[in-house]
Amino acid sequence: MILLNEFQKIVFIGAGNVASHLGKALKDAGNEILQVYSRTEKSASLLAQKLETTSTSNISEIYSNADLYVISVSDDNVDQILGKLTLKDKLVVHTSGFLPMDTLKQVSENYGVFYPLQTFSKSREVEMRSVPICIEANTPENLQLLNSLAGQISSDVRQINSDQRKVLHLSAVFACNFPNFMYAIAEKILQNHDMDFSILKPLILETAQKIQELEPANAQTGPAIRGDERVINAHLKMLDNYPAYQKLYQIITDQISDTKKPETNNQ
Amino acid sequence: MILLNEFQKIVFIGAGNVASHLGKALKDAGNEILQVYSRTEKSASLLAQKLETTSTSNISEIYSNADLYVISVSDDNVDQILGKLTLKDKLVVHTSGFLPMDTLKQVSENYGVFYPLQTFSKSREVEMRSVPICIEANTPENLQLLNSLAGQISSDVRQINSDQRKVLHLSAVFACNFPNFMYAIAEKILQNHDMDFSILKPLILETAQKIQELEPANAQTGPAIRGDERVINAHLKMLDNYPAYQKLYQIITDQISDTKKPETNNQ
Repeated sequence: MILLNEFQKIVFIGAGNVASHLGKALKDAGNEILQVYSRTEKSASLLAQKLETTSTSNISEIYSNADLYVISVSDDNVDQILGKLTLKDKLVVHTSGFLPMDTLKQVSENYGVFYPLQTFSKSREVEMRSVPICIEANTPENLQLLNSLAGQISSDVRQINSDQRKVLHLSAVFACNFPNFMYAIAEKILQNHDMDFSILKPLILETAQKIQELEPANAQTGPAIRGDERVINAHLKMLDNYPAYQKLYQIITDQISDTKKPETNNQ
Repeated sequence: MILLNEFQKIVFIGAGNVASHLGKALKDAGNEILQVYSRTEKSASLLAQKLETTSTSNISEIYSNADLYVISVSDDNVDQILGKLTLKDKLVVHTSGFLPMDTLKQVSENYGVFYPLQTFSKSREVEMRSVPICIEANTPENLQLLNSLAGQISSDVRQINSDQRKVLHLSAVFACNFPNFMYAIAEKILQNHDMDFSILKPLILETAQKIQELEPANAQTGPAIRGDERVINAHLKMLDNYPAYQKLYQIITDQISDTKKPETNNQ
């Protein structure tokens, strides 16, 4: 039986951005990172150094005496890892927004999910306390342990089942990945006119801050929601040399127009 | 001749979000808001009250003794206003990202542009000091006056000509309006599964904060940039009941894939 509310001995399987940020947060909270495994020795030892622990790129050398195994590799590589792993009754979790919890059934009797809903980059610190940690487990005891562990690093721990997590993951693509691509298009357009992207930064930040208070549907501004055909047509014409962006502009504008309300908003 | 670095007497023509935020900032900086005009008496008097000044909805009653006239109405309504306005040699500016400066030629000998690059909402305060103010004027003297005025309220004043401003305005649609619509889609998807949008707020904020440091093209994460076909196909299938969002997901994913670099990023 695992004692609750204690610090854990943790092995990280995977050494990417999620493993790196989670590992640091869990170590800083007082847990012991026992080992880092990665397919390549270089990335394993890089993260191990950061977490002041040992590393291996040999899956058969993964220590068997940890309390918790965190599998944090890209969704595509999980199956490959799982095929080679046997942890018997050790608690094992993955950090994927997409994969069902039951994926882990084959490697241990005790399993769950520890999904931090955030975008992690190598070069940026993230305030982990405000990151929602979505947990799920196959038994109440395992859930309690994950809940206690998540509570050490975040003030927003939520019990989310596999179906809900999949929906969350999809919505996160719209909330994070697609907006970032819109920023990249804006950057490209400005660059092609010798203008500096930095001028848009306060606008981008305010757009994200705004919806911390307002509902996005009520925060919509711009020519599409105003139905300003003259501006829309001029913008489309300016995008004649960017057929891909032009197509995107047209489709998103049409979809925004379809949601239009009588209420007016200026950008 | 107008003395520089002095406080101005200002008339606002228009009483929307931009007029409201600019008016407040300029008043707080020490300028006198002489009058607010709007087509409807109600919105004119609402803003006038906020700015502790008088209002009118009769265009012929606009005072002639101001130093500066700020036209801040929706682009569609500017022509209508201009047709009825004569300001002789008084300095007049508009606040539009889209309209060329010369639009104002017909109403005065002295004219320019005072474009705050930000999204303004009724219910939210905005930190004006960090808002880029894009100025343009028909003479060096007028430019100097606008520069001085903009410098009173913002630490980021930029001289931007009409062509550049139009490009900026287009890029702002991608950087602000379209991301907000992506947030709205995420909200909709969660709502339809009885989940709360609030869980995405830290993710949305971090996505915007990230590109304050990183280039958006280098900050891209998610299944599209990873080329994770399994996740992409599952997401598309989940969107079967949302054909509009499904189409958008497919197009944006294709465009992100086209930019793909060998470097890997986890979401």
